[in-house]
Amino acid sequence: MRNRFDQELEQLNNELIEMGALIERAIGDASRALLEKDLELAKKAIEHGGLVDDKEKQIERRCLRLLLQQQPVATDLRMVSTALKMITDMERIGDQAEDISEITIRLIDEQYIDSLQHIPAMAHATTRMVTGAIDAFVARDLDRARAVIACDDIVDDLFVQVKDDLIRLIRADSANGEQAIDLIMVAKYFERIGDHATNIAEWVVFSITGEHGNERII
Amino acid sequence: MRNRFDQELEQLNNELIEMGALIERAIGDASRALLEKDLELAKKAIEHGGLVDDKEKQIERRCLRLLLQQQPVATDLRMVSTALKMITDMERIGDQAEDISEITIRLIDEQYIDSLQHIPAMAHATTRMVTGAIDAFVARDLDRARAVIACDDIVDDLFVQVKDDLIRLIRADSANGEQAIDLIMVAKYFERIGDHATNIAEWVVFSITGEHGNERII
Repeated sequence: MRNRFDQELEQLNNELIEMGALIERAIGDASRALLEKDLELAKKAIEHGGLVDDKEKQIERRCLRLLLQQQPVATDLRMVSTALKMITDMERIGDQAEDISEITIRLIDEQYIDSLQHIPAMAHATTRMVTGAIDAFVARDLDRARAVIACDDIVDDLFVQVKDDLIRLIRADSANGEQAIDLIMVAKYFERIGDHATNIAEWVVFSITGEHGNERII
Repeated sequence: MRNRFDQELEQLNNELIEMGALIERAIGDASRALLEKDLELAKKAIEHGGLVDDKEKQIERRCLRLLLQQQPVATDLRMVSTALKMITDMERIGDQAEDISEITIRLIDEQYIDSLQHIPAMAHATTRMVTGAIDAFVARDLDRARAVIACDDIVDDLFVQVKDDLIRLIRADSANGEQAIDLIMVAKYFERIGDHATNIAEWVVFSITGEHGNERII
């Protein structure tokens, strides 16, 4: 029984790593597609977003079956319940990569109104956060998880800067309004990705320490 | 043992109902504060959002302890794992009510650029969705849960209309740009609330039928 459970846990771990690789690709492709106006890459990011959804369902089923059939305790239970919470945030990152790519596709024939100075910085910072959170999970690396959590403020500040840039551009020319609204959405999606990466990192901390948001749970 | 577990489940149920009441109030207050420019109510919505966070932590701890100490099976397990997923969406609704209210407070001394025709419709529709999802959970009402899920498209369509309204307003006067960007954020938050209410309703369906997104899980 124990061996079977260990095998199942290992498979769960592998599936989480696979899902992590998928969201890393989805967000990486979505960022690059936006900045390089690459239609094919934007479509690929949407495709990857769909695969992330499938993976979430698969892992969710595995977790619920594990809880049901194997009735894990202590550390094992913590691992399964962490997985169950983590995949929600991972799936949302996939959704946001899709949302960004849909805007990219809509803007594909337009010239950007903005030099996109702060948006690439957001793309870069959030991609690093996602990769960091996944790496922290894989390596059970508490310091790495905490470093991800510390990055969230930088992304929030960048969002405010993007917003200010766009307001300036609208003031300069109201014809910029339509694209400005698309770009503020893009910035908001990146900000959310930062939030979700932070949540994932917090779940990694929980899975290692049993503490979530400075509180001991189990 | 069984009796103790039933008691614990009932407490969990009550806590979910309390959390539901809190998010209903948070979103109701946030909507009314926005439309009526009511500073005190906006502050109250933010306060309620904070209480929602506390409640989430409390329920999360209870669920994890229940899984650990009581090792539920079948329907009971489904109930606990549903709760664990539902509270994530409930907590996000609280966050979004806070986000909306922060913008309300920022705009409190400004005249709205828009007659806010479609935003109140979004506020109304999403508040109904949240209430519907909570009611469906309390009454274990499958039809009600499915009705909530069906409403999501209406909210998505309203978001597109708000966006079009705001682009028109920016074109008419670029000085509208700053507020337009705040209002598109408000609309986006309402759209997200609709998404989260849909997720909650899907979890209610799962807790009753064992099916999530047309797939049988356990």
